[in-house]
Amino acid sequence: MAKKDLTAYSICSDARAMIKKAREDGVETVWDRLEEQEPQCGFCELGLSCRNCIMGPCRIDPFGNGPKRGVCGADADVIVARNFGRMVAAGAAAHSDHGRDLVETLHAVAQGQTTDYGVRDEAKLRRIAAEVGLEVEGKDVKAVAAALADQFYEDYGFKRGSMSFLGRVPAKRQEVWKKFGITPRGIDRDVVEMMHRTHMGVDNDAVSLCLHAARLSLADGWGGSMIATELSDILFGTPAPATAKVNLGVLKADHVNILVHGHSPIVSEMILAAVRDPGLIAKAKAAGAAGINLAGLCCTGNELLMRQGIPMAGNHLMTELAIVTGAVEVVVVDYQCIMPSLVTVAGCYHSRIVTTSPKAHFTGATHVEFDMHNARQKAIEVVELAIERFTARDQGRVDIPGEPVDIMTGFSNEAILTALGGSAGPLLDAIKAGQIRGAVAVVGCNNPKVKHDYQNSNLIRECIKRDLLVLVTGCVTVSAGKQGLLMPSAADLAGPGLSAVCKALGIPPVLHMGSCVDNSRIIQLCGMLANALGVDISDLPVAAAAPEWYSEKAATIGLYAVASGVFTVLGLAPPILGSKAVTDLAVSGLEGVVGATFAVEGDPVKAAELIDARVRAKRKALGLTP
Amino acid sequence: MAKKDLTAYSICSDARAMIKKAREDGVETVWDRLEEQEPQCGFCELGLSCRNCIMGPCRIDPFGNGPKRGVCGADADVIVARNFGRMVAAGAAAHSDHGRDLVETLHAVAQGQTTDYGVRDEAKLRRIAAEVGLEVEGKDVKAVAAALADQFYEDYGFKRGSMSFLGRVPAKRQEVWKKFGITPRGIDRDVVEMMHRTHMGVDNDAVSLCLHAARLSLADGWGGSMIATELSDILFGTPAPATAKVNLGVLKADHVNILVHGHSPIVSEMILAAVRDPGLIAKAKAAGAAGINLAGLCCTGNELLMRQGIPMAGNHLMTELAIVTGAVEVVVVDYQCIMPSLVTVAGCYHSRIVTTSPKAHFTGATHVEFDMHNARQKAIEVVELAIERFTARDQGRVDIPGEPVDIMTGFSNEAILTALGGSAGPLLDAIKAGQIRGAVAVVGCNNPKVKHDYQNSNLIRECIKRDLLVLVTGCVTVSAGKQGLLMPSAADLAGPGLSAVCKALGIPPVLHMGSCVDNSRIIQLCGMLANALGVDISDLPVAAAAPEWYSEKAATIGLYAVASGVFTVLGLAPPILGSKAVTDLAVSGLEGVVGATFAVEGDPVKAAELIDARVRAKRKALGLTP
Repeated sequence: MAKKDLTAYSICSDARAMIKKAREDGVETVWDRLEEQEPQCGFCELGLSCRNCIMGPCRIDPFGNGPKRGVCGADADVIVARNFGRMVAAGAAAHSDHGRDLVETLHAVAQGQTTDYGVRDEAKLRRIAAEVGLEVEGKDVKAVAAALADQFYEDYGFKRGSMSFLGRVPAKRQEVWKKFGITPRGIDRDVVEMMHRTHMGVDNDAVSLCLHAARLSLADGWGGSMIATELSDILFGTPAPATAKVNLGVLKADHVNILVHGHSPIVSEMILAAVRDPGLIAKAKAAGAAGINLAGLCCTGNELLMRQGIPMAGNHLMTELAIVTGAVEVVVVDYQCIMPSLVTVAGCYHSRIVTTSPKAHFTGATHVEFDMHNARQKAIEVVELAIERFTARDQGRVDIPGEPVDIMTGFSNEAILTALGGSAGPLLDAIKAGQIRGAVAVVGCNNPKVKHDYQNSNLIRECIKRDLLVLVTGCVTVSAGKQGLLMPSAADLAGPGLSAVCKALGIPPVLHMGSCVDNSRIIQLCGMLANALGVDISDLPVAAAAPEWYSEKAATIGLYAVASGVFTVLGLAPPILGSKAVTDLAVSGLEGVVGATFAVEGDPVKAAELIDARVRAKRKALGLTP
Repeated sequence: MAKKDLTAYSICSDARAMIKKAREDGVETVWDRLEEQEPQCGFCELGLSCRNCIMGPCRIDPFGNGPKRGVCGADADVIVARNFGRMVAAGAAAHSDHGRDLVETLHAVAQGQTTDYGVRDEAKLRRIAAEVGLEVEGKDVKAVAAALADQFYEDYGFKRGSMSFLGRVPAKRQEVWKKFGITPRGIDRDVVEMMHRTHMGVDNDAVSLCLHAARLSLADGWGGSMIATELSDILFGTPAPATAKVNLGVLKADHVNILVHGHSPIVSEMILAAVRDPGLIAKAKAAGAAGINLAGLCCTGNELLMRQGIPMAGNHLMTELAIVTGAVEVVVVDYQCIMPSLVTVAGCYHSRIVTTSPKAHFTGATHVEFDMHNARQKAIEVVELAIERFTARDQGRVDIPGEPVDIMTGFSNEAILTALGGSAGPLLDAIKAGQIRGAVAVVGCNNPKVKHDYQNSNLIRECIKRDLLVLVTGCVTVSAGKQGLLMPSAADLAGPGLSAVCKALGIPPVLHMGSCVDNSRIIQLCGMLANALGVDISDLPVAAAAPEWYSEKAATIGLYAVASGVFTVLGLAPPILGSKAVTDLAVSGLEGVVGATFAVEGDPVKAAELIDARVRAKRKALGLTP
């Protein structure tokens, strides 16, 4: 049981209250398990262990007197690069396989194979189809949807050898990729090729491996993730500004509480429809509840928040703690970042974890498999289960900490352009004038190795103070939202230039752009700004940061940001420090290749200073005031 | 420097002689590096370490008092299954990405984009195209090739949701796969989905993960590997029986010696063309050589051996030792199983490692990149480099041990059917009559953890003694060949029934069926036999063994064999022993799912007894004498 002072774990009062309750209830949390694992294996932490064949496992000891080569002869550089390559491959695979589900959904809609789903934003469907070169004039919505699904199927294969959204990449950036052979060719192909290259006896050069890692990350950022974002908008609506609520206070003691968790809108949108069903609400009331309350966790939460204004209960490290409130009947999950411990935590209460995807089973969970033909019906079953579970709730064990905080959401690129009057011009003008000195994407996860939400929220504070507009996605959304940073009133915390712009437009200095696949919105925005200025993305006064990242997906996102030309600060080091070659490439060598690097800095003030220096240099190079 | 008695390392005199020379020359070999790595990490060896996110790395201690769950909550079963899943994904990726290169080559031939390559077996092209449902009547070779390439492109994507060669799978087997949801859907898709499932918080059930591992292995066996095999035959010729030579004695002290190593015929066939070029032979003679000698290593060697009768210098553990002879000018490599140490070993002599693939660079090697447009020209450059290197050879350091041994090769399924008079009937009759009690595929690699070639060759001896026909591929080819087991005269070592059949047909009791992707020939043959008998593959008196396996590909092959219904004995345990659930599933539970299991047995006699028991049981169930 974690025994440090509660303030060591999180800056959030709801988190601290629930960690305390978890201790009292005898519930093990992620912090307890981290303490049990410490000290963690130094070889694995530095990327120096290899399990890629059974001549091994091998461990390299570059700093001591131990072996310098694995059984096959691979040295620290190759082993670290191979491990990092597989990490990036897994991250890209996750996002892209999520995108795949949306392509299949669009295809089913187009073929009339489902009535549960449909096209909610036909204008965007037509716009995207035209953008990728399809004929849309005079075609009905299904025909356009069918053609677009076909187009995206090809992006996953290897026949075309290219990807639909590469047209969004500024010409100068495309030249860079071409020069170094890192233009992505196909989403699945580039992932699979990394798995091939990292097999024993294939690619045995750290630089070659890292360049392919960059290529496959681009296949995610400008491919799989971008397809996921755009098709989610087409199928479920393009986000527009709205306000909502955040923190554990969004749970309601007198309601049936259902949480959605994972990453996809496909299941969660059906749950949303079901909780609004008058028949089910009546059933809930008959069971003694005041109604049915739906809230989100992590990125499935972001998907519903961005489009539907559904409140957010918490981010990654809050997922166990949400159940500890004792007020959650059901957590409905799809995939990614769902701690398997949730099943155990739920078992300490009346709660149930409901798994819904054929590719994500959890031992001990209740599996209700959703597909395109039964989704609405299955959602009803899940809500009925939640109502049944409500009758088993022990109100004496319920403790919902604090009051929810207001947040503003919905800043899709479409919404941003609309707010700006239809073009990026006013934003560029503000940047040129130095009112907004630059933009910083602060994205990513939580990680129990660092104090929950501390780096995420404080880096944001430091950035806006420096007149840097902040864009957030993923778990950082909740970190920022709980601190009030996602409201227009946070303009008071911003520097004078940014503050004035925000107040004039009525927007917060921190814009919520969606889930973690929606980092594709940010990279697309960078492309638009670079194109408008006729420069490369690496010339822009922009940066990215993932202060509390934990996942392989975050590594992939970081790499596609850097490979797109965006300087990126990580709050924790990736497992590459065992190789000087790979580390040097990451923190300096890549500047000469893709015009951007990584930095690792856990202190929010120092991280902001690194970002500020980058913005200053880029503004100077563009002939702007620093 | 490895210090055990030489007999501890290998049963082969050429290997022992060169290990001794390596010691004298101060050259480090794979055995030295293994000793340096020992003791290897028990967590990694048992599959109990997890690096799939940076909340970790985590280690599970299921047997002691250490942690039972990782930071995310994953237990030993989930961690072991995830690690094994990624292992199988890498193996499938390797084979299938190799197949991809052949699809692209066929496409380039069809489109007239290359003159370096062409269709050598048009009859097979037409037969395969017709088999997968394409119209071939009245179409010219390029049109058929184009249609077939298009068809196979789709097998890698996810649009069709199926694969071309599933028609080769017996109906009963297809039902099994359908029942358990393991019918493969697309080659790249199923690999990528495994990378997704093994990301933190996706698939957290060991059985679900293992079933998907089975599915993706089938996408390799009946997909990527099978495409690689069939297209290699179409482009380079379908193998037919021939005799050749094997062991380090195939090197020639007075010749320019070039070795080809890796897995694909695409580069090696061009090297073969170049070494036969009269102009280059004249250049070699002008440089003082008697001529140019080409020999193979590993599976690229198998590709040239099967189709062209090119001699084989050695298998996996002979690759370093071949260079130690001091007689090798150039080792030309494509990809897979090429120890990065080769560059270091070559550096101790005048030898050069030439890398040829954009996806396989080796730090310190000479990179001569081959593509479809320059392959013949690049092959000439490589041979010219070898001639130049010959002039730098120190003949005083040359030691080529022993005399080559004769081997018979070329047993493609087409060749086997031809030898049997056009149908599998005579083979089935011999099986029914009990002359041939069954068939055993003995395949796989070498691994320095076990005495080189000992298990491979002795298991074969034990099998043929029991009237079991043996089929070999990959590195086992050399193990068997060096012991004389690939010649018809080895019939004297077989049991009376098998011996009589072999003598009547003039064939060896051990048939060489190709490289490791060519295990697809064996599984296809199983399908044909099952179809002829109207039974499932799991009803056949057949088995498989990988006595000295080391690679992720071998894990994938083993799993597709088992998932196809073939009992498979591994000489070394895969890294799954940390999970009782996964281990139990592998060695017993799978019987109830796919009708076959794994066994782990390093003793060749005991392994043969396990196989014999399986054959006996299956013969009995078919109503045959045991």
